[in-house]
Amino acid sequence: MDKVLTLDSINPNMIKIEYAVRGPIVERALQIEKELRNGDKKSFSEVVKCNIGDCHATGQKFITFVRQVTALATFPHLLEDKSFPEDTKSKAKDLLAACSGSSVGSYSHSLGLEVVRRDVSKYIHQRDGIESNWENIFLACGATEAVKMLLEMISTTGRDSERAGVMIPIPQYPLYSATNSEYNNFQINYYLDESDNWSLSADELKRALMSVKGQCIPKAIVIINPGNPTGQVLPQKCMEDIIKFAVDNRLMLIADEVYQQNVYQPDKYPWASFKKVLFNMGPSYSGKLELASLMSCSKGYMGECGYRGGYCELLNFDPAVQAQLYKALSARLCPPLMGQVALDAIVNPPRPGEPSYSLFVKERDDVLSALKDKADITYSALNSMPNMSCNPVQGAMYAFPRIHLPPKAIQEAKRRGEAPDFFYCLQLLEEKGICVVPGSGFGQQEGTYHFRTTILPSIEKMKYVMKQIEEFHISFMKKYS
Amino acid sequence: MDKVLTLDSINPNMIKIEYAVRGPIVERALQIEKELRNGDKKSFSEVVKCNIGDCHATGQKFITFVRQVTALATFPHLLEDKSFPEDTKSKAKDLLAACSGSSVGSYSHSLGLEVVRRDVSKYIHQRDGIESNWENIFLACGATEAVKMLLEMISTTGRDSERAGVMIPIPQYPLYSATNSEYNNFQINYYLDESDNWSLSADELKRALMSVKGQCIPKAIVIINPGNPTGQVLPQKCMEDIIKFAVDNRLMLIADEVYQQNVYQPDKYPWASFKKVLFNMGPSYSGKLELASLMSCSKGYMGECGYRGGYCELLNFDPAVQAQLYKALSARLCPPLMGQVALDAIVNPPRPGEPSYSLFVKERDDVLSALKDKADITYSALNSMPNMSCNPVQGAMYAFPRIHLPPKAIQEAKRRGEAPDFFYCLQLLEEKGICVVPGSGFGQQEGTYHFRTTILPSIEKMKYVMKQIEEFHISFMKKYS
Repeated sequence: MDKVLTLDSINPNMIKIEYAVRGPIVERALQIEKELRNGDKKSFSEVVKCNIGDCHATGQKFITFVRQVTALATFPHLLEDKSFPEDTKSKAKDLLAACSGSSVGSYSHSLGLEVVRRDVSKYIHQRDGIESNWENIFLACGATEAVKMLLEMISTTGRDSERAGVMIPIPQYPLYSATNSEYNNFQINYYLDESDNWSLSADELKRALMSVKGQCIPKAIVIINPGNPTGQVLPQKCMEDIIKFAVDNRLMLIADEVYQQNVYQPDKYPWASFKKVLFNMGPSYSGKLELASLMSCSKGYMGECGYRGGYCELLNFDPAVQAQLYKALSARLCPPLMGQVALDAIVNPPRPGEPSYSLFVKERDDVLSALKDKADITYSALNSMPNMSCNPVQGAMYAFPRIHLPPKAIQEAKRRGEAPDFFYCLQLLEEKGICVVPGSGFGQQEGTYHFRTTILPSIEKMKYVMKQIEEFHISFMKKYS
Repeated sequence: MDKVLTLDSINPNMIKIEYAVRGPIVERALQIEKELRNGDKKSFSEVVKCNIGDCHATGQKFITFVRQVTALATFPHLLEDKSFPEDTKSKAKDLLAACSGSSVGSYSHSLGLEVVRRDVSKYIHQRDGIESNWENIFLACGATEAVKMLLEMISTTGRDSERAGVMIPIPQYPLYSATNSEYNNFQINYYLDESDNWSLSADELKRALMSVKGQCIPKAIVIINPGNPTGQVLPQKCMEDIIKFAVDNRLMLIADEVYQQNVYQPDKYPWASFKKVLFNMGPSYSGKLELASLMSCSKGYMGECGYRGGYCELLNFDPAVQAQLYKALSARLCPPLMGQVALDAIVNPPRPGEPSYSLFVKERDDVLSALKDKADITYSALNSMPNMSCNPVQGAMYAFPRIHLPPKAIQEAKRRGEAPDFFYCLQLLEEKGICVVPGSGFGQQEGTYHFRTTILPSIEKMKYVMKQIEEFHISFMKKYS
């Protein structure tokens, strides 16, 4: 008998979703790992996963302060344990006092614990030097949930020309294209300029918007800064142009700023929040732009992906719209409490003089300085390979090199029914056990080919990865030249 | 200047969402709590929140085993701590070994850690005596996320008569109506029979389905068992009728079984899973029904709402559809790791002979026996009040008494522009500090009025709540008679 639910009867938007970071290449990587465990002989002994910004998975250690606070909140008997520093205890006590029934097992307010929202607003205030109202901040199950809610909120039930247009960068983090598919938004691609270090110009934004005239109702523009998968840090001038463009064209700006702590050459390429740049432009802009800024526990120096902690700060939203968003969030009850606790430990870390301070600073700086080194190693190694070019990794956790594929490789990929860069990445995985994501999963200029690799494995492992890629790359190029 | 996003330009389905459990009465309760803290004089000294199934918020203690395992997984240095029992350590070690990089800070597979999915399948196998395939189980951010994904998956982008019809009980848990609004599903109400202990008949299901003929494409039926807000446990015969109805009418069955451990008179009103009843009906049914069964960390004896742990078991789904659902889940990366760890501790608790066993059993049984007592207390107290009637609380955590409101009270409510039971509940809150949810938030037969109260506060507190309700109820009835 036929099923009730078939591909013909389920939500077609769900079928349209694509999420390359966890696509078929990753599935194959998991398979190969099983084959290796089963004793299969290969020319490599392990799969190195450079496909996902999953810091701890590649050996990065947790920040002791974050884990001590969350352990204390989990099991308050430990408040009697002398091996936990006093500042971790006082933070855990404050957070527990804010939980209903003093338990992280209770629901919080659907927007998150008030104390955490207040600590987030203080963090933003300190970061930007601009007031932040805690009531404009909501906590989420990772920044991901906030992105999904925002893109769902602006979607329309209309079809075709009534659909909400959302401008996204190409290349982009595929959560955005996936979520636009999910909510039937009209995706408007604007292209980052690879020849200018993945920057973008107001002209390109205008071109993109003009190209879809009449096809949708443009409502939002997404900017990822520092860039994912592209690793650039946007110059202030470029951000001002974006803000002017958004205001002039009546677009909400979704600022994905989850990599704000991953900035490797702050003197040369300083990062600033969109909020700060906006306020520097004066009240004719700062009072206008509807801005949603996202941050997460999953990236930065802490890399606590599993906690699913994140926040979104809203600016200049119509209070009635904000109330609708907040109401919609209430039906899912609340974000995970442990994610909220971890977020609080991150936005309100130990201060000078507190017992956890020196260890915290050491652990944080160790992670960030290793990331900086790996950014350099990756950039240099990739650029030293023939038919490969890569922009500097100024921020985030990724390099996005361009592979100049020979026509024969492209033909072979076509013969196999695969995108050329998919073909390249799959061969790299099969031959060397290195798992990266093809550029086609993020989008790229027609006729160009890339892949994204994280810079997360240890320095030694990252050197190994680069060596494996180089060996593969040279033999691949030879084979198809 | 006008905002980009206004009530006219955002997603109208989001505006339609209603979620009474956290609606205006709860907002007012929070306000009153602030007033009390500010020293305002009232005839009561505290607000007792009986509006939400939030166990720990009302003083229920956590299960030590669950918290020890999650604390160890959070901060593995504690594995050296002699005060943690060996079985909590070995479980934490097993779970950490399953995490990438041995850290709960890494992402898991988007469907959850394989070891937890396997432990869930063993739990189901043991519960029902029927095989369970771990690959048909996905973990979620509470059962809530699973419900949302299922109802999104069956939604169509069509309008009007092409919309997906979803049958839900009235009264219902408002997540269902909220999610149907969110995804533009056509809600088909079937009524539980208050005069027959909130049971339901196949005739009522047929009536409901016939009444919407041509208005939508019916695709699913939601059953909540034990019932929320109604507290009944469905008899096996009734479940068989539902299964036959679903198969005959080609409906997927969403079985909300999150209260499966909250069954207070198992001899008289035993609970069985829909899966078990289905398999008892033989292969002509068990091979046909597309069944999704939900479970959560938030209820039962553990009440760990804040962890946002939950699972869904799928049965008889078209593999292609299941693959689409699983793909869609991958874009949100993964459920919270701590929720997964807590879920594992719950589905695979200490066994006889293990060091944590006796404390675990004592803590579990203390919670469940207190809940049973409170179910009795609440039932008796409510039925002793004039113009109030309540079915026995056989399961879950709620009583849903009917209030026989006099016409003058109904007139007064109309004058205020409030639903009559909303008016009653608001007055109860203002005069006595007791926060319950009006029946209109859950749905009820036209012309009947109810409220939902949890049975979660301590026995002593629950007696106080009943006394407050009684005093209020008698004076309210007098005033409007």
